Amino acid sequence: MANLYFEDAEIGTSCTAGPYLVTKNEIIQFAKQYDPVPRHIDEEAAARSVFGGLTASSAHTLSIFILLTTRLQPRLHVLAGMGWDELRLPNAVRPGDELDLETTVLEMRESKSKSDRGIVRNRVLLRNQRHETVIFSLRGDLTRTRRPALK
Amino acid sequence: MANLYFEDAEIGTSCTAGPYLVTKNEIIQFAKQYDPVPRHIDEEAAARSVFGGLTASSAHTLSIFILLTTRLQPRLHVLAGMGWDELRLPNAVRPGDELDLETTVLEMRESKSKSDRGIVRNRVLLRNQRHETVIFSLRGDLTRTRRPALK
Repeated sequence: MANLYFEDAEIGTSCTAGPYLVTKNEIIQFAKQYDPVPRHIDEEAAARSVFGGLTASSAHTLSIFILLTTRLQPRLHVLAGMGWDELRLPNAVRPGDELDLETTVLEMRESKSKSDRGIVRNRVLLRNQRHETVIFSLRGDLTRTRRPALK
Repeated sequence: MANLYFEDAEIGTSCTAGPYLVTKNEIIQFAKQYDPVPRHIDEEAAARSVFGGLTASSAHTLSIFILLTTRLQPRLHVLAGMGWDELRLPNAVRPGDELDLETTVLEMRESKSKSDRGIVRNRVLLRNQRHETVIFSLRGDLTRTRRPALK
């Protein structure tokens, strides 16, 4: 499917990507570089943690979310992310999980200062194969319109 | 410095970590895996983007933030992250940036259900060498108290 410009989207427009299979090896390799604490890199320590087993670093789960945004179908022309309101990771990601992303447009407005840009607020849901939410967020994106910029 | 339990912290307690030097190679390698869009992996395309040069993926910046939380001095005994209220990345991270993390306790409360746990709300600031904020967030953490769990 084609990329969407601001004018092609409407409230309720939904985009999806996935599934993404998360392996034990990827969890451990990611955490060794960016979150080297026992519950993410050592299976025995992880079993004794409040999670009762190996879980992905929140940084890793967020990175998989960002990767899936690059695979959304259809996909909005995003110029830049504008931030997250409420970001929750209510369930941990574990080895073997398969993650699916769904974004839904909640609000839209044209940029007041630049006619070639619009602002879209999305609800983001990253869920595992049991449909449990691993990331919930409300996120803003700066998008492109079909109109050229005013000079 | 030693790790802090819930009782050792108070409103205003500040913890710091860094600096962390971000290299061009790390920006490109990270983005190739988790955010393979031209503005994060191709210097020429990046120069033409709204950022005017190579910038780190937001996933990468968040991962460096998580890494620095593991190096905080002093450091709270964190059992699990409880989510982010407001997460903003107001300035992009660029090759050669050196990032410093500062967290400040804003609110604290004991867990009502588990006596060995407390909940701490922090202000998070990740800043570059020019003291520009690259991550601002309000974040909650589930922490450990000195008291054993009630049976």
